[in-house]
Amino acid sequence: MAGMVDWILAKRSGQELPADVIRQMIAEYTRGDIPDYQMAAMLMAMWFRGLTEAETVALTEAMARSGSVIRPEDLPPGAADKHSTGGVGDKTTLVVVPLVAAAGVPVAKLSGRGLGHTGGTLDKLAAIPGFRTDLPLPRLLAQVHHIGAAMAGQTAELVPADQKLYALRDVTGTVDSMPLVAASIMSKKLALGAMNIVLDVKVGRGAFMPDLAAARALAETMVAIGTRLGRRVTALLTDMDHPLGRAVGNALEVKEAIAALAGHGPADLVDLALGLGSEMVAASRGISPQEARGHLTQLLRSGAALAKLEAIIAAQGGDPRVVENPDLLPQAPVVEPVTAPDSGWVAGIDALAVGRIAMDLGAGRKHKEDVIDLRTGVQLAVHVGQEAVAGRPLAWVHAANPDAAAKASARLRQAFTIAGEQPPPRSIILDRVAADDPTP
Amino acid sequence: MAGMVDWILAKRSGQELPADVIRQMIAEYTRGDIPDYQMAAMLMAMWFRGLTEAETVALTEAMARSGSVIRPEDLPPGAADKHSTGGVGDKTTLVVVPLVAAAGVPVAKLSGRGLGHTGGTLDKLAAIPGFRTDLPLPRLLAQVHHIGAAMAGQTAELVPADQKLYALRDVTGTVDSMPLVAASIMSKKLALGAMNIVLDVKVGRGAFMPDLAAARALAETMVAIGTRLGRRVTALLTDMDHPLGRAVGNALEVKEAIAALAGHGPADLVDLALGLGSEMVAASRGISPQEARGHLTQLLRSGAALAKLEAIIAAQGGDPRVVENPDLLPQAPVVEPVTAPDSGWVAGIDALAVGRIAMDLGAGRKHKEDVIDLRTGVQLAVHVGQEAVAGRPLAWVHAANPDAAAKASARLRQAFTIAGEQPPPRSIILDRVAADDPTP
Repeated sequence: MAGMVDWILAKRSGQELPADVIRQMIAEYTRGDIPDYQMAAMLMAMWFRGLTEAETVALTEAMARSGSVIRPEDLPPGAADKHSTGGVGDKTTLVVVPLVAAAGVPVAKLSGRGLGHTGGTLDKLAAIPGFRTDLPLPRLLAQVHHIGAAMAGQTAELVPADQKLYALRDVTGTVDSMPLVAASIMSKKLALGAMNIVLDVKVGRGAFMPDLAAARALAETMVAIGTRLGRRVTALLTDMDHPLGRAVGNALEVKEAIAALAGHGPADLVDLALGLGSEMVAASRGISPQEARGHLTQLLRSGAALAKLEAIIAAQGGDPRVVENPDLLPQAPVVEPVTAPDSGWVAGIDALAVGRIAMDLGAGRKHKEDVIDLRTGVQLAVHVGQEAVAGRPLAWVHAANPDAAAKASARLRQAFTIAGEQPPPRSIILDRVAADDPTP
Repeated sequence: MAGMVDWILAKRSGQELPADVIRQMIAEYTRGDIPDYQMAAMLMAMWFRGLTEAETVALTEAMARSGSVIRPEDLPPGAADKHSTGGVGDKTTLVVVPLVAAAGVPVAKLSGRGLGHTGGTLDKLAAIPGFRTDLPLPRLLAQVHHIGAAMAGQTAELVPADQKLYALRDVTGTVDSMPLVAASIMSKKLALGAMNIVLDVKVGRGAFMPDLAAARALAETMVAIGTRLGRRVTALLTDMDHPLGRAVGNALEVKEAIAALAGHGPADLVDLALGLGSEMVAASRGISPQEARGHLTQLLRSGAALAKLEAIIAAQGGDPRVVENPDLLPQAPVVEPVTAPDSGWVAGIDALAVGRIAMDLGAGRKHKEDVIDLRTGVQLAVHVGQEAVAGRPLAWVHAANPDAAAKASARLRQAFTIAGEQPPPRSIILDRVAADDPTP
């Protein structure tokens, strides 16, 4: 097969592309020798035909190697990494990274910005006054060696092929291809060097994957790719029908993450952070997740996890006093309660609706170039399974002005489902996917 | 549906695009407001999902109107047009246009250049010394009004959307989509104004459509589109397993076309020219194809058809003496016979192989930017169904040099199948497709 048109025709007809073709294609595309219009046709053919596991592995590896890479040996031994497919109120990274670092598991966490109804860790970090996320790679690595953790933004030098491909998929209707999603995520994880990886694959209304079967397929593919490429990977399938925790919006979520690290976070967030964190510690140490969970619970109680966040903030130029005094975080000028129309039990809070309301309040981006208002968002007063009392707050809207608050309040009330009976208790973690044959 | 990404997603999921969306999309793409990479993704989605008849009609009409158009009233009454899907040795246009013009049916014929193993009429016309094919539209129309026919090259002002789309399809693996092919062909026919259209859909080894069922589907789609848009359209399905006539190569084909117009052309070429020509005359005059065929046969005998070619050549600055003296056409310096290894009957001559041999001799283009050698090509000594005698010529190679001739000769011998028995007689015209409900 001589060139891109032949490769497109082969993929279009359902043939498997050899690994060396995929390598050459990604290298030429990254250099600009294959134009966007040919790659767009290839991506659409891939959307229709899918990719075999061998193709997905080859694509992942080619993308991971398209720019600078952090080699496993560049990191301290036992380093771990996590990835979330994105949700509403998902501040888990802010809890898990200091938590596992406090347990002695190093993490070099690179995050992205939010788009649409889902937030991005990079935006949440920006709510901490003075916090720098534009760390050059050498500085990032030095910090991980020094204090065990760093949290920064993706740089242009890492996985340029994924950055270019993702931008193209976004404008050509080829985002929601399971193997392309899997390759995109895993290429970034591979390029960041950690041998131990946990994936948080969200399922439900507010997630990229609306149903459990599709989410499980994505998780299994990513675990298989990572395992084939020599990493220890597990995935948790977690609920995203409802917002995670009670805060949605950047400063509000940082505040909630601090509370969780101080030992008094909302149950779902704490449970998820312990679940993901214990997978990372277990893989890193070769112990069971149950044993790891015990250690981590202790670190939340002792204050060691919160102290680690304080150290990370200080190391990256942020104001470490926010840990003791979260009121130093930016605050919205208008805070308006949304009251319950009737009494009853909260049976559901539509994550997608809450995510969109928060976005419209300025906490998220409708378009890539939008500027975020770090102060705004939604704070839930009651969560699913709790009692609602007529006239008492269901939530508070944090807005830039009264007009925005009024609009958001009316919509936010609609996002709640109030029922006559208490709903059955639910677990944030729906399932776990591990390699069939894990690397010891 | 707000914009191109939504339209791509709709097509990708199998939804029918509304006509106004297709119109807007083609207008924006022609202006450059939709980038090639988005159109490439759309074309691949169209390749997988197909187009409904309504979508194909809307696309055809939008492309036809994307630039300048010749309106039916710009042409003399009763004007007709023909289109061939391309083959090996297909010089039919050079015969049909003067033939039907001699019968009083006006033709403004615009043709393209050849690519790959198939030739283009524009290249064949270039073999006539002095002949101008770059006629501005007003001059082309004036000539059709004055002498009843003109043969020129496609201009950039006509159907720019098709030109842009075709170039994109060529490099994105989306050429062979039946509705896209149909829309491309019919948009050009519509933009050229003729009310009466005959389509020559070639079937076989040397054709774009290898099998009869696929060719029939294409013909039916094109007839349906043209009929829906108010034109009288018929299609002939014609054999392209073997080269058409005995000449393949530009000057050689002009010589053969002159012979056919003088009443002594090869049977298959004459039969096809009469078949296509009689459809054009029948549609234009409202008579039966059988009656029209009688008139046309008479015009070949009388010399009137040849005289019309002479008049066209003279009107377009060519040397009209070639009609009486075809040796004035460019001639290859090396002419080498390819002899029969055994005696027997010619059972097959591989059109694709002969087309490629001619291309490699310089008569065609491997790449768009290649320069053609008008002198070179292949001249068959015997055709399918005739006797081969060991040691006597099967064909002659017309080459630029002895080296090229030697290479071509060896390959050309392989293109012949010699059998022990005479093959059954075959007809060049395999089937006819007309509108179910023709416009009267």
